[in-house]
Amino acid sequence: MPSYRLLLEYDGTDFAGWQVQADGHRTVQGCLEAALERVTGESRRITAAGRTDAGVHAAGQVASLTLDREIDANGLQRALNGVLPIDLVVLEVAPAAPGFDARRDARSKLYVYRIWNARCRSPLHGRSHHWVPQALDPEAMATAARHCVGRHDFASFQTAGSSVQTTVRTLAALDVMGQSRGEIRIEVVGDGFLRHMVRNLAGTLIEVGRGRRSPDSLPALLAARDRRQAGPTAPPQALTLLRVCY
Amino acid sequence: MPSYRLLLEYDGTDFAGWQVQADGHRTVQGCLEAALERVTGESRRITAAGRTDAGVHAAGQVASLTLDREIDANGLQRALNGVLPIDLVVLEVAPAAPGFDARRDARSKLYVYRIWNARCRSPLHGRSHHWVPQALDPEAMATAARHCVGRHDFASFQTAGSSVQTTVRTLAALDVMGQSRGEIRIEVVGDGFLRHMVRNLAGTLIEVGRGRRSPDSLPALLAARDRRQAGPTAPPQALTLLRVCY
Repeated sequence: MPSYRLLLEYDGTDFAGWQVQADGHRTVQGCLEAALERVTGESRRITAAGRTDAGVHAAGQVASLTLDREIDANGLQRALNGVLPIDLVVLEVAPAAPGFDARRDARSKLYVYRIWNARCRSPLHGRSHHWVPQALDPEAMATAARHCVGRHDFASFQTAGSSVQTTVRTLAALDVMGQSRGEIRIEVVGDGFLRHMVRNLAGTLIEVGRGRRSPDSLPALLAARDRRQAGPTAPPQALTLLRVCY
Repeated sequence: MPSYRLLLEYDGTDFAGWQVQADGHRTVQGCLEAALERVTGESRRITAAGRTDAGVHAAGQVASLTLDREIDANGLQRALNGVLPIDLVVLEVAPAAPGFDARRDARSKLYVYRIWNARCRSPLHGRSHHWVPQALDPEAMATAARHCVGRHDFASFQTAGSSVQTTVRTLAALDVMGQSRGEIRIEVVGDGFLRHMVRNLAGTLIEVGRGRRSPDSLPALLAARDRRQAGPTAPPQALTLLRVCY
């Protein structure tokens, strides 16, 4: 059975996240599977590299699916985009190796978390940034972030409610870029992420930026393996899945 | 009577432009004047540097107003922001010289027009960019733009329906930045703009970028003083008033 790889972009504002839910909320997966059925007549499960939370955006989400019969990839892309809603688009469709699984086969994912550091809230950044009115120190945040790069147990940054076999993950990068007053970007590359892990890292780095936590307290925080010792979960609208590598 | 200078940011998506309209549409001026009356008890006209069209954004609009009695500028800012809707904010309030008029006293304005040049529409850029699927040539657009810099009669770029004494304006800059495939920004600085002038320039430059019009046809187009010879009016959601100089 032929497999396909989809590259997706969506504005997460009006989605209850990626994953289809029992209560019928509007989800990216739900919209995409409905479009696929309408276009091909086949009702198939579509798997994403990252199951983004409600409100989280994607500029380069990858998804996989298998059909009963072969179909022209460009034709499938055009047909899907013809029926998808305005806040979801298929950027690419390509044939994939048999058994390709966008989630299991992903080697790393790149996320960006965007902070708007300004005295006033910003109508033009409200859908894509987290507003922090207090002056942040991006240097201190960058120092704290460097302690998290590499292979660590990230249990302190995992929101309860998920059942994973291990909380050990490897971050290839965790960079803080920008200036106090204006946009500060946190870019993170990892082989996998625990529940709310990027947003919990962002919330903790913001506390460092505000001077409420020392940049060099991060090693002890990682060692504690205790969610209650880390910062709050930063809000979702500032998070975007940029790229998935295979 | 004390005068004040307001610095404003707004997301133009859900506004019918700056100016109060007879039919009661939701406008920036209307929201701001209602907030001012609620906060000060004074019903006053507020004047903006640029009367932005429906859908056009502002990151640095300037407005002026006069009150009967003096009021603390920071207190006024906080009070206004406490009652303004989420898509409109006052970034600054400062006392101004008596008789200050944000429109009449403006020396120049900087606008940006953002194009998203990509094969697919973009959910993440849809509110802030104009999508052009055909490959554009930014070099050709920049060459065409340079012909418009300086003092010219811009009658070819004025949408009908306005009554101005002269259609001569001076552009200090008209720059095209970016690459084919991705974001292309058109930045324009001028002492004043005719109705839809920036959007008509953008529509014409896009035709140049698509190869439908020669970059060196601009001097003849200016000389023609004929709106029908220029390109279409590009859509409003891609236009932002960035800054006003006094």
